[in-house]
Amino acid sequence: MLTFDRTSVLLNGKREFLVSGEFHYFRVPHEDWRRRLRLFREAGGNCVATYVPWLIHEPVEGGIVFGDRPERDLAGFLEAVAEEGLMAICRPGPYQYSELACNGLPEWLCENYPELAAKKLDGSPIHRGSVSYMHPGFLERARRYFRAYADVVRPFMASRGGPVVLTQLDNELTGIHVWFGSFDANPETFGFGREDGRYPSWLRRKYGTPQAMNEAYGTDFASFADARPILSQGDVHGVADERRRHDFALCYYRQAADYLLTLRDWLREDGIDGPLSHNASGSVMSTYFQEACADLAPDFLLGSDLYYTLGQGWGGSNSPTPHYYIDSLFSLDSLRALGMPPAVLEMPGGSPTDMPPILRNDLLACYMANLAAGMKAVNYYVFTGGPNFGETGTTCDIYDYNAAVHADGSLNETYYAMKDFGAFLRAHPELLDMHRVASVQLGFDFDWLRSRGWFSPSKDELDGGHAFDFIQHGLLYTLLCSRYSAEHVDLAGPLDPARPLLVGAAATLSAAAQRNVADFVRSGGRLVITPSVPVLDEDFRPCTILADAICPFRLEARQRPDAPVIAEGRRLYGGKAPRFFAEIPEGATPCATDAATGETIAFERAVGEGRVVVSTLYGNASHYDQCIALESLLDRLGAKPAASSSNRSVFTSLFESPDGSKRALFALNLYSSPQSTDVTLYRDGVPCPPVHFDLQAMEVKYEVRRTKDEG
Amino acid sequence: MLTFDRTSVLLNGKREFLVSGEFHYFRVPHEDWRRRLRLFREAGGNCVATYVPWLIHEPVEGGIVFGDRPERDLAGFLEAVAEEGLMAICRPGPYQYSELACNGLPEWLCENYPELAAKKLDGSPIHRGSVSYMHPGFLERARRYFRAYADVVRPFMASRGGPVVLTQLDNELTGIHVWFGSFDANPETFGFGREDGRYPSWLRRKYGTPQAMNEAYGTDFASFADARPILSQGDVHGVADERRRHDFALCYYRQAADYLLTLRDWLREDGIDGPLSHNASGSVMSTYFQEACADLAPDFLLGSDLYYTLGQGWGGSNSPTPHYYIDSLFSLDSLRALGMPPAVLEMPGGSPTDMPPILRNDLLACYMANLAAGMKAVNYYVFTGGPNFGETGTTCDIYDYNAAVHADGSLNETYYAMKDFGAFLRAHPELLDMHRVASVQLGFDFDWLRSRGWFSPSKDELDGGHAFDFIQHGLLYTLLCSRYSAEHVDLAGPLDPARPLLVGAAATLSAAAQRNVADFVRSGGRLVITPSVPVLDEDFRPCTILADAICPFRLEARQRPDAPVIAEGRRLYGGKAPRFFAEIPEGATPCATDAATGETIAFERAVGEGRVVVSTLYGNASHYDQCIALESLLDRLGAKPAASSSNRSVFTSLFESPDGSKRALFALNLYSSPQSTDVTLYRDGVPCPPVHFDLQAMEVKYEVRRTKDEG
Repeated sequence: MLTFDRTSVLLNGKREFLVSGEFHYFRVPHEDWRRRLRLFREAGGNCVATYVPWLIHEPVEGGIVFGDRPERDLAGFLEAVAEEGLMAICRPGPYQYSELACNGLPEWLCENYPELAAKKLDGSPIHRGSVSYMHPGFLERARRYFRAYADVVRPFMASRGGPVVLTQLDNELTGIHVWFGSFDANPETFGFGREDGRYPSWLRRKYGTPQAMNEAYGTDFASFADARPILSQGDVHGVADERRRHDFALCYYRQAADYLLTLRDWLREDGIDGPLSHNASGSVMSTYFQEACADLAPDFLLGSDLYYTLGQGWGGSNSPTPHYYIDSLFSLDSLRALGMPPAVLEMPGGSPTDMPPILRNDLLACYMANLAAGMKAVNYYVFTGGPNFGETGTTCDIYDYNAAVHADGSLNETYYAMKDFGAFLRAHPELLDMHRVASVQLGFDFDWLRSRGWFSPSKDELDGGHAFDFIQHGLLYTLLCSRYSAEHVDLAGPLDPARPLLVGAAATLSAAAQRNVADFVRSGGRLVITPSVPVLDEDFRPCTILADAICPFRLEARQRPDAPVIAEGRRLYGGKAPRFFAEIPEGATPCATDAATGETIAFERAVGEGRVVVSTLYGNASHYDQCIALESLLDRLGAKPAASSSNRSVFTSLFESPDGSKRALFALNLYSSPQSTDVTLYRDGVPCPPVHFDLQAMEVKYEVRRTKDEG
Repeated sequence: MLTFDRTSVLLNGKREFLVSGEFHYFRVPHEDWRRRLRLFREAGGNCVATYVPWLIHEPVEGGIVFGDRPERDLAGFLEAVAEEGLMAICRPGPYQYSELACNGLPEWLCENYPELAAKKLDGSPIHRGSVSYMHPGFLERARRYFRAYADVVRPFMASRGGPVVLTQLDNELTGIHVWFGSFDANPETFGFGREDGRYPSWLRRKYGTPQAMNEAYGTDFASFADARPILSQGDVHGVADERRRHDFALCYYRQAADYLLTLRDWLREDGIDGPLSHNASGSVMSTYFQEACADLAPDFLLGSDLYYTLGQGWGGSNSPTPHYYIDSLFSLDSLRALGMPPAVLEMPGGSPTDMPPILRNDLLACYMANLAAGMKAVNYYVFTGGPNFGETGTTCDIYDYNAAVHADGSLNETYYAMKDFGAFLRAHPELLDMHRVASVQLGFDFDWLRSRGWFSPSKDELDGGHAFDFIQHGLLYTLLCSRYSAEHVDLAGPLDPARPLLVGAAATLSAAAQRNVADFVRSGGRLVITPSVPVLDEDFRPCTILADAICPFRLEARQRPDAPVIAEGRRLYGGKAPRFFAEIPEGATPCATDAATGETIAFERAVGEGRVVVSTLYGNASHYDQCIALESLLDRLGAKPAASSSNRSVFTSLFESPDGSKRALFALNLYSSPQSTDVTLYRDGVPCPPVHFDLQAMEVKYEVRRTKDEG
């Protein structure tokens, strides 16, 4: 039995790493199932995952078939899995991707029912094999497939002593819409033109009357039924349009949650119990599932997929670079903010292409970096492949995927990366209940990522997208090179009064989050906010709850090219040019000035029981001076350092057991040359003797330390 | 004395590597000049380069000053350089960049003369510190500065026994316009509204009459003086607009060449002799200097700048990846096509930012990869830095640049990468007259890169930009993983009948190039052309000279998702879906078919004395099967393999001495994990015994082989 909390998964009530490998019974040759399952167990695996493709099991409409041939023998596969002492995750879709024709949907569904397709606002289909989730015609057909699926799998559920511990609902939901065009606006699904339609109903719940809606949108729709959304950023001209676009995004996310609820209900009706999961396609997309996480709790486990490359045209990197690690940190922290254990549900087990290749050291570094970021559960995609049967594959006949075990059964060198990692996990159970030590809370607003379009009333304030980029590649990258560690926290969620809160703020911040942060400060919290203070709420309406609390102030637009001076006269290089305050509150202490004019560009003041630094500093991390500057601001607020690396390009990640008796340190070299460093750990602000690390290219080292070692 | 040909530079008549390091007398503390010059000599350097910033030498208009303080003591610096036995390259601008205020232009020039700014078509300035090169007011002021510069440097010219062997004209010309907006359209410079203005005159030379121009543009301008260009891709609606946009690009390139000619004339008038140089900002921009190379020959040396990172926001990679190497190969080959020795005039000697850091192994791999790509001359930017004096710096007070020798004079670990590379060059003079062995000529058209906007009449044909991307990341990447090596050749230039020509073709190809390729084939050449055959000339007018010669044929737009089959029944995975011929010429031999339908998607036929393979294959390099497929097509045409690597992700570069008696091999691991391979060299198509290589992350190894070793 698999359960979970925000710390990790539990297997039969005991904390354990979930180490799963994707293993497709419909591709891996039947006669080699057992040998490969054992190979995975020997590599440290305790679970396998598989899609159960509708495409393969209902080749002709109405002709659902399981077990007639090895490639459709799901039951036989689950038996083998159980007999090899492994657990299983089933992923019955309906949508799957997996480089399958029609993304794993039946060919007949896509060909014969064009009305079920996800559609752009002009009615054109978004993509072949991309359906409109809540279209009744789609649901009707998917329902039949789910019933047949349940009939096969029910006996294999963990509750009945079987291997199936987790069932995944759909796959990378919303991705197939967003990547190929826009959110789905299928008119039937969203009920345009019908007063009881999904979109009109959503609008009624939010606005009550068409008049209120028209006032918000600057439109003159006669009714909710007449209303139409805006989907594309290009169609947004001003804040009213942006509100209309943003509302539809919320309606769309609500629809995605409803879809997951529907699939859950089907499974439950048919006796599929146990936890359910979903894999968001990457860190940003996991924020789209806020409603789903709330509604499906406590049985719902959201994880995300984190690849570093899917081929040279894909936009990633050839190896797990600092940018990849930064993405992983956000992914796992934001999952925890959603109540989830930090899980990577698709971790590269290979790559669909050969260029760049997936190499052993890179892959091990990728796994170790995710572990250093807090990961407690993983599913490798894929552990092994095999031939696609019939015409079910899109990229190739042989689905090799450069996997740990090749399609032909031979071992890839990357198998040994997986095996090394498996051995590491077995050797280090202490990590299971340890948490990453974070000096600083790095605030984010889910809506900055969910809004997908982004609005800012002036060029002096950031839109949500730019604020997030600043958080990741400005603030977090800088902190990774500093002695302060960071954890992403939801600004609308619980905040820890013991640690400073650092906010790279957008112009918009929900009223609830503004209130939450204001309360945090007034009751004794410490806050650094930069480069401005939010002025709008989640509906893009004026809202200065936070500004009113911490400091009513105004920025001037004027910008200068000069380097600012931080704190003790140290110049800050490489950030963007400073902007100025039009007014500084009385009694505030300047803590950064413009080098040329001496004007204040950051100040500190007391607010209630707490303290706040308001700053205009902004920019990508570029120079180590920025680390020193940020350290200086955080020093003012009494932040506690975690670990400092003499070589700032070697990152550290410090873990601590719940009782504080044991600590463990990761030292990460995520660059392609060897690096050395001396790492000084701090205990309650006091430095311990430094430890030396020599690291090869793309190497992550780990060391457990006991309190007595640190004297 | 420095001279050069297409093979290399010559110093006093003898082939030698030019190993230059950027060394700013206006930043490096005077008292440390000598020590750092010696450090560079010890690292294998034989030359230093320096900007001579107008900003610094004419702080007040009319007050040109040299020698009053160490930071302005150019003469003293050149004396020191000479006494330390080094050569010098001077870069007097006028424009310089170098992270200087106003890009090295005087503050007063930018502030007091807004009319001299480079401008967008709407009259707004493109960027602070970006001038309109041929504006008379700018030229008048720059002329005075150049005279004062010449007065200082004349005695130090190599012809008078001094150290100055090369003078650079301006810096990264056109870049400061293009990066920040568009080509310059300053109305005074381009003479809009004046019949004798630059742009009206250009139009008259091309079109003769306004009627002819209007016919070409679909406009009704009353005169050439009335005509206005199109600059932005967004303003292009159809082929006539594209022609108008493209024409202005040509007029702009002509203007850039005129500017270089003007600067040359000034220098010559003032007694600055010897060769002149210019550094294009990257491989693509070097193609903008076709006119300049023709007009300034034979004293003009064009090189390009090749950085792999300039900070995390810059879009490069953390290390010199295969994409960087591919860019270097094009850069150096295209410079040779322009008659130049393969020179990198700004090679990373550091980076303006700390994130990502410049690390020793990465840097050495970068240098070695450029050498493997054919480089014979290099200037490190920068070898060492120092404080900016006054308010002359933009990024910082201290210009450290993470250089080999830090601003404070201490040695960076990267100094040893430079030193290792210097020692390597000294130990391997045999490379000086060796050339890279290329099995295949990889054709390109300068205009595909110069057109900067790109037009294609239908989605079945590529525009120039996509054709170039296909050449680099489809064809060349594939060839790097194959046993065939490649050299980029200008399709309008000389073609070698002994080697097949591979063309990734755009819809447009100049009539001259079409004729050239047709003649090449008819007289016995072998050609592979894919994914279509050009249908337009350089003016986007119908032109089928090449198609008529090799095969009149038509593509059908219909596309299929199935994997094509190449040659001996091998399926090709990962390319784009094949497209079909509407007709196949009689007597043609099919050599690739669509797997699902059996339809031909590539055929071979005889044309005159030659042979041609016409193919519709297209796509980024993704699977090694594509290497096998391309090898199969090239086998048909009798291409001679160079070297095959058992591990296709380890690249090779084979060099041969002019008499064929000596060969040398580079094995390149441009990924971040260790790799091994066995490399088989071929001599006239016959394999030699394989050689084993174990390579660390980002390691390039080298081995000299004599004919007798290869028995």
